[in-house]
Amino acid sequence: MSIGKAIAGNAVIGQSGGPTCVINQSLIGVVQEVAKNEVIDHLYGARHGIKGMLEEDFVDLLKEDKDTLAKVAGTPSAALGSVRMKPTKEDCVRVFEILKKYDVHYFFYIGGNDSAETADIVNQLSTEAGYELRCFHIPKTIDNDLLVTDHCPGYGTAAKFVACALMGDNLDNRSLGGIKIDVIMGRHAGFLTAASALGRTYELDGPHLIYLPEVAFDRDKFIDDVERVYSTAGRCVIAVSEGVSDADGNAIGATGEVDDHGNVQLSGSGALGDHLVKLIRDKLGARLNQKLRVRADTFGYLQRCFPGMASEVDAKEARMVGEWAVRYAVAGNIDGSVALRRFDDDGKYACDCFLTPLSTVARKTKDFPAEFIHRDGNDVTPAFIEYARPLVGDLPAVARLAGRSVPKR
Amino acid sequence: MSIGKAIAGNAVIGQSGGPTCVINQSLIGVVQEVAKNEVIDHLYGARHGIKGMLEEDFVDLLKEDKDTLAKVAGTPSAALGSVRMKPTKEDCVRVFEILKKYDVHYFFYIGGNDSAETADIVNQLSTEAGYELRCFHIPKTIDNDLLVTDHCPGYGTAAKFVACALMGDNLDNRSLGGIKIDVIMGRHAGFLTAASALGRTYELDGPHLIYLPEVAFDRDKFIDDVERVYSTAGRCVIAVSEGVSDADGNAIGATGEVDDHGNVQLSGSGALGDHLVKLIRDKLGARLNQKLRVRADTFGYLQRCFPGMASEVDAKEARMVGEWAVRYAVAGNIDGSVALRRFDDDGKYACDCFLTPLSTVARKTKDFPAEFIHRDGNDVTPAFIEYARPLVGDLPAVARLAGRSVPKR
Repeated sequence: MSIGKAIAGNAVIGQSGGPTCVINQSLIGVVQEVAKNEVIDHLYGARHGIKGMLEEDFVDLLKEDKDTLAKVAGTPSAALGSVRMKPTKEDCVRVFEILKKYDVHYFFYIGGNDSAETADIVNQLSTEAGYELRCFHIPKTIDNDLLVTDHCPGYGTAAKFVACALMGDNLDNRSLGGIKIDVIMGRHAGFLTAASALGRTYELDGPHLIYLPEVAFDRDKFIDDVERVYSTAGRCVIAVSEGVSDADGNAIGATGEVDDHGNVQLSGSGALGDHLVKLIRDKLGARLNQKLRVRADTFGYLQRCFPGMASEVDAKEARMVGEWAVRYAVAGNIDGSVALRRFDDDGKYACDCFLTPLSTVARKTKDFPAEFIHRDGNDVTPAFIEYARPLVGDLPAVARLAGRSVPKR
Repeated sequence: MSIGKAIAGNAVIGQSGGPTCVINQSLIGVVQEVAKNEVIDHLYGARHGIKGMLEEDFVDLLKEDKDTLAKVAGTPSAALGSVRMKPTKEDCVRVFEILKKYDVHYFFYIGGNDSAETADIVNQLSTEAGYELRCFHIPKTIDNDLLVTDHCPGYGTAAKFVACALMGDNLDNRSLGGIKIDVIMGRHAGFLTAASALGRTYELDGPHLIYLPEVAFDRDKFIDDVERVYSTAGRCVIAVSEGVSDADGNAIGATGEVDDHGNVQLSGSGALGDHLVKLIRDKLGARLNQKLRVRADTFGYLQRCFPGMASEVDAKEARMVGEWAVRYAVAGNIDGSVALRRFDDDGKYACDCFLTPLSTVARKTKDFPAEFIHRDGNDVTPAFIEYARPLVGDLPAVARLAGRSVPKR
């Protein structure tokens, strides 16, 4: 971490993991900052992250025209292509050899904690070999579960989508009644599911119940909760994380499929939603002796790539972490993960960047803080709303009729 | 249909069926046009459509303040509440008696073909009784399947949502590969599923395959189609209507539940998506001897109530059909359904209103026209794109990198 001179040579950048609506802001932030710079000769974009590095499948990013870069910045999903492959130690060794071959001294990797780990391993290899390689992790995840940083680029926009979706679904449910379940992404961290609360406008607006992966899911308590809301309000909107599991850690209603990371498949299936619908119909239906109207929607991939509705703050900060990665990289022989620090600017939300060691972000993830969880385990607290609102920005305005009743004749 | 003088008295309005993002534009169009008028004394809004009429549960809409009306117009879902109940003949007789009791001479019902039928029955009862009741159906449906009208208010915005969703999902799939299925609303009419094609920007953009309810779904041909796309492009995005059925009319992958109208439940469940995922994994996976990455999302209720992204044309036309219903109603002793007629205004899209008899819109629905279906039965034609694009309006701009490859070292 000693500060030295910039080193002449090339740079490589890759994008990894699930895409977001603003991951290309970070990419273009890097491209434009490198273009301003004299010491980096070429900026190679690896197609599909680590896969492109292993296959030496690079594109020349400094040959893109300005207009294209501006448009790509506003385009959701990874413009270079992404990858779900987790590199082995041998893969990392091979990547390091390839980076050397291409005279690369700057390595930027945009992604989550797995990507920070890859950058960390490659960085250790370069240190052991005495080869100067400045390795930077640029944070990205809709799950908002990276350590150290106040929040993660990508989260604000996905949270805005979820908040809007629940605003609409609450209005839909208010109009037609019944019980509605919305299954929201976030395998281990409840941040995105919690964002369902951000659009509440009037008292008794849904979601009326919120279930996070950090709280053990108890089927009996769930039925009691739904009964209480339904018998009071005549309707019920429920936001539930795709990652909810019982006290023994068993995922609720999961399919059997396991991905490359050994994770059980949760997204891209309606299994959890349909499981909960059946649970309510059977158990609450029997208790109330009613045929209940229960429906479930699983928001799925819409949450991470829906175009045209990026949070302004999120887009700006995603650009900023890319730009700062380059600024740090050319400032000296340092490595790290770019993190966001929130501060109060005369009563207004503001945010700047700082650098944290790769090892502090690699591997582990952050849980949804306990002070953001309602003591009943089925909602969020005002502290969460205060934390998340500036990241999401303004939501569409909705209103109700005053609805003055006409006397019956 | 004889033109006479306006008749002094009250008016009732209700909203029915699945909500849309612009159904309140029609409601507020009626309220504001009635407010301008001298002959209608009170405008009663029935809570939850026909249900509120039967229960005499009315609100006084002329007592709403201007600011609230403006905000409600831009709020998705039915502000008066909606209903899925189909009235019996006896219900209609009872509604007619209640309308008489409240000195109602103007009856406005916003909804689909079922609502047109209700208005038609009540109108016949009033004619038989020699009571002057001017009955108007105001069209609303995201399915776009009403007869006579060129298109239906509510469709343009839902179609915009679907187009945007597929733009995002195509980018997501391009970035990570695999096979992705998106299940789209529209039980009998393919208009909404067809809108998935509107966001295609580059050659080979998804959706690569589109399955409409108007085309018999053949599982073997489906697998052949997916194989062809997947083996060429290395990925595949599929848009499929929730209402697809085989040559014998059996719904593909439907759950057993049936609603009040005798319709099999399709929305609010991931059953069809999960069924098609399994079909591809099993059949195509075996044929290619590969473990395929296949995912499905069912867009569900998000399609009809997502706030903040109304199509401008759709919002304007929804307002217009409400306003014109009142203008027709006070012009004379006439009844009917307000319809939209498209015309060419010096090369630009334009649209105005006309009145069609209630019986021409009641009961039956419109199929997706044959000339909009690709001859292979798995896509739409350019004629559909030309028809739908002005209703949806501008979509978010997305771009790709030029991606000039770097020579391997």
